[in-house]
Amino acid sequence: MIDTPHLVDQYCHGVLRTELGLGTFEAHLGAHLGGAAVLPAAGTTFFDTQAGFAVRRWCPPLLGLEPHCPPARYLARRRELGAAEAGRRLLRASGISAYLVDTGLPGDLTPPAELGAAGAAEAHEIVRLEPLAERVADASDTVEALLAGLAEAVHGAAGAAVAFSSAAGARGGPAALPEPPGPAEVRGAAGRWLAGRATGGPVTDPVLLRHLLWIAVTAGRPLQLHTEDPASLRGFAAATTGLGTDLVLVHRYPYHRAAAHLTGLHPHVYADLGPVLAHTGARAAAVLAEVLERAPFGKLLFSSGARGLPELHVVAASAFRSALGRVLGEWVTEGAWSRTDARRVAAMIAADNARRVYRLA
Amino acid sequence: MIDTPHLVDQYCHGVLRTELGLGTFEAHLGAHLGGAAVLPAAGTTFFDTQAGFAVRRWCPPLLGLEPHCPPARYLARRRELGAAEAGRRLLRASGISAYLVDTGLPGDLTPPAELGAAGAAEAHEIVRLEPLAERVADASDTVEALLAGLAEAVHGAAGAAVAFSSAAGARGGPAALPEPPGPAEVRGAAGRWLAGRATGGPVTDPVLLRHLLWIAVTAGRPLQLHTEDPASLRGFAAATTGLGTDLVLVHRYPYHRAAAHLTGLHPHVYADLGPVLAHTGARAAAVLAEVLERAPFGKLLFSSGARGLPELHVVAASAFRSALGRVLGEWVTEGAWSRTDARRVAAMIAADNARRVYRLA
Amino acid sequence: MIDTPHLVDQYCHGVLRTELGLGTFEAHLGAHLGGAAVLPAAGTTFFDTQAGFAVRRWCPPLLGLEPHCPPARYLARRRELGAAEAGRRLLRASGISAYLVDTGLPGDLTPPAELGAAGAAEAHEIVRLEPLAERVADASDTVEALLAGLAEAVHGAAGAAVAFSSAAGARGGPAALPEPPGPAEVRGAAGRWLAGRATGGPVTDPVLLRHLLWIAVTAGRPLQLHTEDPASLRGFAAATTGLGTDLVLVHRYPYHRAAAHLTGLHPHVYADLGPVLAHTGARAAAVLAEVLERAPFGKLLFSSGARGLPELHVVAASAFRSALGRVLGEWVTEGAWSRTDARRVAAMIAADNARRVYRLA
Repeated sequence: MIDTPHLVDQYCHGVLRTELGLGTFEAHLGAHLGGAAVLPAAGTTFFDTQAGFAVRRWCPPLLGLEPHCPPARYLARRRELGAAEAGRRLLRASGISAYLVDTGLPGDLTPPAELGAAGAAEAHEIVRLEPLAERVADASDTVEALLAGLAEAVHGAAGAAVAFSSAAGARGGPAALPEPPGPAEVRGAAGRWLAGRATGGPVTDPVLLRHLLWIAVTAGRPLQLHTEDPASLRGFAAATTGLGTDLVLVHRYPYHRAAAHLTGLHPHVYADLGPVLAHTGARAAAVLAEVLERAPFGKLLFSSGARGLPELHVVAASAFRSALGRVLGEWVTEGAWSRTDARRVAAMIAADNARRVYRLA
Repeated sequence: MIDTPHLVDQYCHGVLRTELGLGTFEAHLGAHLGGAAVLPAAGTTFFDTQAGFAVRRWCPPLLGLEPHCPPARYLARRRELGAAEAGRRLLRASGISAYLVDTGLPGDLTPPAELGAAGAAEAHEIVRLEPLAERVADASDTVEALLAGLAEAVHGAAGAAVAFSSAAGARGGPAALPEPPGPAEVRGAAGRWLAGRATGGPVTDPVLLRHLLWIAVTAGRPLQLHTEDPASLRGFAAATTGLGTDLVLVHRYPYHRAAAHLTGLHPHVYADLGPVLAHTGARAAAVLAEVLERAPFGKLLFSSGARGLPELHVVAASAFRSALGRVLGEWVTEGAWSRTDARRVAAMIAADNARRVYRLA
Repeated sequence: MIDTPHLVDQYCHGVLRTELGLGTFEAHLGAHLGGAAVLPAAGTTFFDTQAGFAVRRWCPPLLGLEPHCPPARYLARRRELGAAEAGRRLLRASGISAYLVDTGLPGDLTPPAELGAAGAAEAHEIVRLEPLAERVADASDTVEALLAGLAEAVHGAAGAAVAFSSAAGARGGPAALPEPPGPAEVRGAAGRWLAGRATGGPVTDPVLLRHLLWIAVTAGRPLQLHTEDPASLRGFAAATTGLGTDLVLVHRYPYHRAAAHLTGLHPHVYADLGPVLAHTGARAAAVLAEVLERAPFGKLLFSSGARGLPELHVVAASAFRSALGRVLGEWVTEGAWSRTDARRVAAMIAADNARRVYRLA
């Protein structure tokens, strides 16, 4: 009744090319904290999560197995096909027709073009600001070179990338001080960073993180902000109103309602809903319904947030399509929404909003 | 099965008298931030929100149209009838028998008596503290005159008003320091305010805002506090326990659960639930059910929070009645509640609690 | 379909031995704040809460009455049987086969052995750190004696207790500074406490509270932390990773989703779900479903959180069993979970996780 044939996955990562065993697969079902995969407690497994059960619900049938077959049987079949062929089958069955791929995470993940080819879909790059800054710093001897290089690198990347992203929202970067830092402050922070870092050293100084965000705000591409509590971004949202750059809030469980609410308070603020749905499995419809409470429907964007496993792209897309059909279908049945409106809103969240915000063809 | 024939709308505003086009109507479906209506993003409209869909669900039939007809057709019919006649039809079909009207917002909104006459209902005034203070300041040359005037104005207003209201909770007024400010502190703040303000200048000093709240606490009327996160009001709630003045928490999405929970921790704290329900449309039953988790049922008060459009009074009342009937009806069907209890609780939240708290006839 | 015959109640208190009237019974249906029972507002009663309605749903049939009979009739029947006999009937019908009893609250509550005998169940003690410290301080004349006594008391208690508990999480104890305090800091705080306290005086100094927690972390028993917002415990959770002591987050409405989420970020962090369920009555299934969104299923532990009334043990157990059966049953029906997985997860949350974490037979 409510159909969403072509999804734009507005935020994801590439997939691993290597064959996976039970332990390496399981590690991708849990959370990451400070860049490292969290370990399961002794006596427990991350297969016993909504994400694990959702993988076992949606993926085995795509590789010719029964839903909910044991993890070991699924992984044996996956290895039998090979990671590349299994990935192709999974991605092509996901219903995703365009991937926006954040290339800023470590690990040997397929780049956008390879992910697109595997999935027979469009693919575009999202450039993460922090690794970009670290590459510039690796090549800079002086503060002048670093600062000029940062501006040049961001504006240069804006030519090919569809968006920028930053984890600064999760690290309190712009939270305390929403305004751009002053030139002297930036020069001081840049000097301390250059003096103290080894090659590849990460950017963690709040002044530099804020400086990076404000360069990106001037580069004319949407900026994806990974954040825990979106309340911490209110000041930055207010400070960037009317500048012409859209902000997209990413990754916010259990703050998805606050993020959705914030999209109604600022014309340029959008909310991503994939990462929330991908890991809630049987609860995806309930969580999606919460996101739909206060956000204007033109401000919500599907994504998978998938990283490493094509199964996660499949699960997010399947959970989203199933949840959207169920939630909007019930509202139509109750008379709360018209069927025409429901279909229009479904298409907006699945793809049309993303195509407008990222100016995709 | 669960019927709520007569609602007391414990917090709303008046309606506009002018004819409205698509843009002026739409502006009232979105949020307000810092006193100004938020604009929709380019390519989007606030008709594409739960509030917009709820207006199109509930209101067209009251003016002789099909539910979910296009906004332009609805507004054409509204202009054909005239704003006054459309308002009468809408308000009289809302099921609201008493309006408590906060008169402290700017704009040419109908005062309580006019709203009551249009809706064939009782109407009472809620006096907002900040504009009251600003009017006193406009007439005061000295700190002594200002401070005496504030106390006199608040206690004078208590004669006719059913309640006071303040947005200080949303601005951090009493959050950091729950106790009343000392006399010297108040005199200093009053002097700075008088010296620095032009006629009509707003009161924003946290000391003066806290002083205003504490005057109101002594005036013997319930005090409605507009707040974002009710956690910030815990200290003020504790400090005002046992003083004989009730506090009513207003406007708290997505903090409605925390507000409802707080009502169970202090005998004199109540929670309003209208503004949360009015803007969640098809989700009103789900949100109402959350509010009913931890609040003692004697502590919840219906309201519309409507401002400017009589459609918003209708939507809040319709969403509330429909949601309450559905939620309590399911609990009765499951055997979780008795039918007698459900009817009693429905009447409490719809009207009886408000009549007790505000001492209405 | 989803059955949970034997529950381990991983956190509760004893019950009162005295006969109760309407007022004394009602006081146990409301919240406690700062150690004292909150009073109902004039014109309201705590029988008009989800907890009150849940007691009237589940308990009267166990004493031979109709569900939802009036409170006065129920209490008359309870007095007719006597508190001891009524308690036996209620507890034995609860389905709880093991009680973990926190003995650290004031009041004449039955100790673990007596509660176990009344309920024909196992019973184990949870030792609360703050009263333990206060007893040590009562017997200590010098800082040296106090500090040696604290370490000895905690390690001594670890021999018989199954767990420790602390309310320090609710008082901001470890929130601001997750690391253990230094020896000089501890000696200073201990000296000030000894000098300033009368016999029985409570421990409120944040340095001493943190010191107590860190002693408990070394004692090799799980540590139950009563907390309001689990976000405040992130630093402590990170600082205690890999030390071999499990942390169990207790009592967190409306932060149950954040607590469940936190269990996925640290191998040694668990979440209790009883106190959340016991007071939400008809909403228990909805709240339980939220807890099941992001927590690994090996990290959730049933409890009643009951205090004073055996009715509260019954309500928590009944609400939990009913909610679990309904939520998991729906997911099986929809095909989201397999029936085998649902049964396995039900057994984990009901008892198996607690038996593993607390090393029960």
